[in-house]
Amino acid sequence: MRHILIIGIGAGNPEHMTVQAINALNRADVLFIPTKGAKKTELAEVRREICGRYVTRSDSRTVEFAVPVRQTEGRSYSQSVDDWHASIAATYETLLASELADGQAGAFLVWGDPMLYDSTIRIVERVKARGQVAFDFEVVPGITSLQALCASHRIPLNLVGKPVEITTGRRLAESFPQKSETAVVMLDGEQAFRNIDDPDAEIYWGAYLGTPDEIVISGRLAEVKEDILEARAAARERMGWIMDIYLLRKGADFED
Amino acid sequence: MRHILIIGIGAGNPEHMTVQAINALNRADVLFIPTKGAKKTELAEVRREICGRYVTRSDSRTVEFAVPVRQTEGRSYSQSVDDWHASIAATYETLLASELADGQAGAFLVWGDPMLYDSTIRIVERVKARGQVAFDFEVVPGITSLQALCASHRIPLNLVGKPVEITTGRRLAESFPQKSETAVVMLDGEQAFRNIDDPDAEIYWGAYLGTPDEIVISGRLAEVKEDILEARAAARERMGWIMDIYLLRKGADFED
Repeated sequence: MRHILIIGIGAGNPEHMTVQAINALNRADVLFIPTKGAKKTELAEVRREICGRYVTRSDSRTVEFAVPVRQTEGRSYSQSVDDWHASIAATYETLLASELADGQAGAFLVWGDPMLYDSTIRIVERVKARGQVAFDFEVVPGITSLQALCASHRIPLNLVGKPVEITTGRRLAESFPQKSETAVVMLDGEQAFRNIDDPDAEIYWGAYLGTPDEIVISGRLAEVKEDILEARAAARERMGWIMDIYLLRKGADFED
Repeated sequence: MRHILIIGIGAGNPEHMTVQAINALNRADVLFIPTKGAKKTELAEVRREICGRYVTRSDSRTVEFAVPVRQTEGRSYSQSVDDWHASIAATYETLLASELADGQAGAFLVWGDPMLYDSTIRIVERVKARGQVAFDFEVVPGITSLQALCASHRIPLNLVGKPVEITTGRRLAESFPQKSETAVVMLDGEQAFRNIDDPDAEIYWGAYLGTPDEIVISGRLAEVKEDILEARAAARERMGWIMDIYLLRKGADFED
């Protein structure tokens, strides 16, 4: 039986690694590393640093692989993602069959935590369901950008006893401020916050969290909206890529 | 200036500790440890293990302190928590003034992550606002029980591209299944899931997550509801305390 370790490696700071994740890295005979093109070189650098710093066994191998590109033309969002996952699953199946001997363990290193807006778990389940390679798998949690955001702003995620919604840019308009007093937006390519027009809304924004390039801005949304849009555009231009996240809040503790 | 470190120590498994948290522990001259009575002795044991295993400097001190009890009589929930926090803030202020010299660092160890259903950050902000002791503070994130739950069940938190609500037992009825396809419930003393009557709902439940006593149960809510209630009651009787969390889900990936 092969064994797969799906390991959360944190949000960009190598010190986000847990002891459990470090131990899991060192149980892997093979470390599977996606190559995502030349753009996000700083992230690739952090991953190399994590492996260099924490992998202490000398007999494990690194296997790089190309991640299939998502096709969007003529497909709904759901269909596009579904097809894409099928294609990644086929890639994984080949990797497991060709690079991992029976009884060996292979690791996939996932940014943040594999549970949050990441599809490694569901793709591995898909490979399992295809039934071509026998394996079992386990999941190791990691610090997410959501946690790095709150830590850098030194704020609680929730108001006292109140709920929080985690959502995407595409769905923000359905959520905040009508449905949730606190909304966290991940995966937002359109800066959906710019369309929120509530005088009481506050925003806590962060980019490149946990890395030396981290930028954080917070304040009343109406007052800092333009600053964030400008800082984001400038950073994206300078770095060639951006990963950002934000929290929107209305209200305060102890208001019933 | 005094410095306060608010450190997330994970959900019960000492290996949830991040490298950042371990380094923060070792920057503290004083470790402030709440004594919460004799009941949750296993948790106290985990905290002792964390300090014993990861604190490598020999000159730091441990200071235990009694946490004030929340008074509920004649108060609304909000008022009760507000008064309680004021009382804890007074305790913290005394600790900082009497146990920490100028230039020293003190650490508060928080279960899970200080951002999620924990009030250490807001209580420390309250002490700061009182203006009696000068200090600054930083927050170190930690693995939450929500992450331990998903890792143990090996599930993604969200459906593809869909939102998630994190809420409390008191508020579950407002949320699931009307508002959210995925709801995570923390802080539920009443097992609010027993009142959810949806034939499509699935539940992923866990108690004592990350510890050797961990119990997880999952399945269609209607089918496993009684099993969970029984397992929970039996465990609580046996252990003298319980900490549990669950995720409710309706629907599947790629249903639009």
